[in-house]
Amino acid sequence: MADDRFHVYDTTLRDGAQQEGLNLTVADKLVVARHLDGLGVGFIEGGWPGANPKDTEFFRRARTELDLKHAQLAAFGATRRAGVKAADDPLVAALRESGAPVVTLVAKSHDRHVELALRTTLEENLAMIRDTVSHLRAEGQRVFLDAEHFFDGFRSNPAYALEVIRTAAEAGADVIALCDTNGGMLPDELAEVVHEAVGTSARVGIHCHDDTGCAVANTLAAVKAGATHVQGCANGYGERSGNANLFTVVANLQLKRGYDLVPRESLAEMTRIAHAITEVTNVTPNSHAPYVGMSAFAHKAGLHASAIKVDPNLYQHIDPAQVGNDMRMLVSDMAGRASVELKGRELGYELTPDHTKALVDRVKDMESQGYTFEAADASFELLLRDTVQGERRRHFEVESWRVIVERTKGGELVSEATVKLHAKGERIVATGEGNGPVNALDKAVRLALEQLYPELAKLELIDYKVRILEGTHGTHAVTRVLITSSDERAEWATVGVAENIIDASWQALEQAVTYGLLRAGRELS
Amino acid sequence: MADDRFHVYDTTLRDGAQQEGLNLTVADKLVVARHLDGLGVGFIEGGWPGANPKDTEFFRRARTELDLKHAQLAAFGATRRAGVKAADDPLVAALRESGAPVVTLVAKSHDRHVELALRTTLEENLAMIRDTVSHLRAEGQRVFLDAEHFFDGFRSNPAYALEVIRTAAEAGADVIALCDTNGGMLPDELAEVVHEAVGTSARVGIHCHDDTGCAVANTLAAVKAGATHVQGCANGYGERSGNANLFTVVANLQLKRGYDLVPRESLAEMTRIAHAITEVTNVTPNSHAPYVGMSAFAHKAGLHASAIKVDPNLYQHIDPAQVGNDMRMLVSDMAGRASVELKGRELGYELTPDHTKALVDRVKDMESQGYTFEAADASFELLLRDTVQGERRRHFEVESWRVIVERTKGGELVSEATVKLHAKGERIVATGEGNGPVNALDKAVRLALEQLYPELAKLELIDYKVRILEGTHGTHAVTRVLITSSDERAEWATVGVAENIIDASWQALEQAVTYGLLRAGRELS
Repeated sequence: MADDRFHVYDTTLRDGAQQEGLNLTVADKLVVARHLDGLGVGFIEGGWPGANPKDTEFFRRARTELDLKHAQLAAFGATRRAGVKAADDPLVAALRESGAPVVTLVAKSHDRHVELALRTTLEENLAMIRDTVSHLRAEGQRVFLDAEHFFDGFRSNPAYALEVIRTAAEAGADVIALCDTNGGMLPDELAEVVHEAVGTSARVGIHCHDDTGCAVANTLAAVKAGATHVQGCANGYGERSGNANLFTVVANLQLKRGYDLVPRESLAEMTRIAHAITEVTNVTPNSHAPYVGMSAFAHKAGLHASAIKVDPNLYQHIDPAQVGNDMRMLVSDMAGRASVELKGRELGYELTPDHTKALVDRVKDMESQGYTFEAADASFELLLRDTVQGERRRHFEVESWRVIVERTKGGELVSEATVKLHAKGERIVATGEGNGPVNALDKAVRLALEQLYPELAKLELIDYKVRILEGTHGTHAVTRVLITSSDERAEWATVGVAENIIDASWQALEQAVTYGLLRAGRELS
Repeated sequence: MADDRFHVYDTTLRDGAQQEGLNLTVADKLVVARHLDGLGVGFIEGGWPGANPKDTEFFRRARTELDLKHAQLAAFGATRRAGVKAADDPLVAALRESGAPVVTLVAKSHDRHVELALRTTLEENLAMIRDTVSHLRAEGQRVFLDAEHFFDGFRSNPAYALEVIRTAAEAGADVIALCDTNGGMLPDELAEVVHEAVGTSARVGIHCHDDTGCAVANTLAAVKAGATHVQGCANGYGERSGNANLFTVVANLQLKRGYDLVPRESLAEMTRIAHAITEVTNVTPNSHAPYVGMSAFAHKAGLHASAIKVDPNLYQHIDPAQVGNDMRMLVSDMAGRASVELKGRELGYELTPDHTKALVDRVKDMESQGYTFEAADASFELLLRDTVQGERRRHFEVESWRVIVERTKGGELVSEATVKLHAKGERIVATGEGNGPVNALDKAVRLALEQLYPELAKLELIDYKVRILEGTHGTHAVTRVLITSSDERAEWATVGVAENIIDASWQALEQAVTYGLLRAGRELS
């Protein structure tokens, strides 16, 4: 179990799940909990048993199916209702029965919320806190308290807000987490209020939302003011603008403030874990996320490339390996020889000066036509291979293709594609139907090649982006298509550019399949 | 022109454009500049003339095509090279000749960068700063200095970092913007360094990156420490984890710290402007963005719904109307009515309550399918007319259409479209050829209708944008197409959404032609 002096408390499965469009099954929650435990967080808030059947089920299954190494489970719930005993409140009973070693009770600490939302008196709210905390403590659970709307409450009635803290602490709550529930705070004012709370001598925690873009900074400011318990969510999930991103908070505290929060080797898994969780939540990963984003250590270099070769640490705030990420050099129209060489090395090729020059010329020429390689590593690697090998060699050669999209008189929409190609000495003709022209082309190519290359069954087209470049009077617009493909082990992106969107799509598709076959170890014909 | 005492300095077109996957044409840059000016920023950094032909072209076209109301343009560039006179350096000449009233010079302020990246001496670097600043000042331009890697430099050699500030200020630079180039700072340490810099009595600015998730908080901390010039990018665009989100910075300072930075009515356009810029950059809008994100004021109601009705301000940190956003209840229908009524009035329609309700329902339903009307006024107006008139009436009715795109054995690319439609009692069949499927469809429709509606000759399709919208669990991705058309007097935009890109394009095209005919005063059949 983790050191108790400083708590890393994850609330992805409860507050993070409030995010618009995020829906987790019980099985999803168990998987996310395992990932968070793998990172080494101290507490995982699993949900609100009793209020939500899915969460009751989660705690039931967790007992047998979750074998946590670092973390303890926390059950979230409210203080007892007004006018009943804590022992008689069925929602409090559900917390007791959850089997979670920790219960986190949410309580109102803003006088107007007590009156308008809870519709009870300020005194009764304090009694509800006192009774519920002491009841659960007596039953053997550890109790934390989430002081809801604490900062707005402090502004409205500071004496009452502090009284909530004192009441909970005296009744036996170990931590009082101050919640910036509406997320409107800025770090300086927040730190002053935390300082007041710490002055009550209760142990103080912090729970921030990102409505001012300051959730991480607010969390750090609270820690500096004396908080020893930080709440947050994986990838910053949460309602509205999200909760404090727990990964960013942990990396900042551990790598820049010397806190020893998670094992060093777990921190080096953070990027992988962040991405694995996006697979479960089905939320597109934020490529710009600090520390763990795909772009977090990517450089459009040009200007800097030669200096980066001398000392990469001049251009990065930490060694990305500490969080399991990598520096990436993007090949772009601002880049020159140095970045192409670096990129070649990253891909495992040692380029001769002649090859580098040829490749730089080729990239520049293609970029002037509208190609972009910074987001299309696979296309760049194919170009590099062609340059090194001195000719264009592929697994198949295309003779012709045709796409028909039709809206019939009856209103039916039909997309159909035919490809004619040569591979392994055979001429193959295949026709595919799809929900659109590119899907139909994709199906036709697979159909044509799957007999010869059965591994294509694993290749999947997972993203398709289109950009129209310059469309002013006189000049024709050019269409750029980026296709992302996957084979269950990795993803790669390819690019096509043409006046004609179908032609551009075809180029990207052809390269996607070629690269997939190279990955599968297929020799070129 | 804006008040000079506090600068809101946008660098979207220069530093923001370093973002992976973001590529702006000159036309795109002009559009973004107009949006930023509409928001009321003080300065717009347009790019690096001389170093990049696209940026040279931007400044050339800006002279005649940009009519800025609030902002001044700034040209970005480097100090002269080592060992030459500023007056003889062609890159400095390009800054002079850009016509920009302000030049922002980037200069090294980190001793190791001077030695390893610039490969010159610390003294020569100071001379380069002194000469370049005083040369440009003498030529009549206002000069700001970006002190690159300032914070890392201060850690390495504080005396030298401060000497860079003093040298630039003495040579005539109006502002020294301290750049956290690698983005690794946290607010407390950053504020201490800013305080030292302010102590030199130079005017200090701040330029932050989001590698620790603290770019906005760092910017605010610098302002508190005495900085009076803030740099940032629209939507937080930028390399790696992005730059400070200028929209968040402005909203925080203006709504929470009492700064008067942009006109109140422009601030109320911020959400619209943020989204309009994403249409140009073709970067998926971040629905969680503070203040302007789609989800920024969205509540998964449940627990709070009734209390929100009593007093919505108990559950939001600001009134979202201040930034042009809306509270959205994700399960109930509170959003939309007011803005639909307003929009209707703007278009010259007085809507009855029944019509408003029907239109709100329709818009919501269509937005849930992926339509967007923010950037498609013409589609919204057609929808409004359909609602008011109680039926769908058009100048023509389509029976069917078909598009064929083919790459022949000889390598020739052919795009051909056939439309069959009814207009003024006639059935017309026409076939068009084009450089792509949409161009072919466009030609076919014109050919079919031009006998009956000769004014279509003036109608031109001037822009075409495509975005793939991700599907949620189980659903397919859909394609959204935005078409901008013009008739020499005005431009209008229409939207189509479908799984099939050709179908989506067809929808937008059909509306574009219909709207063009309405504008030309053609009665509906």
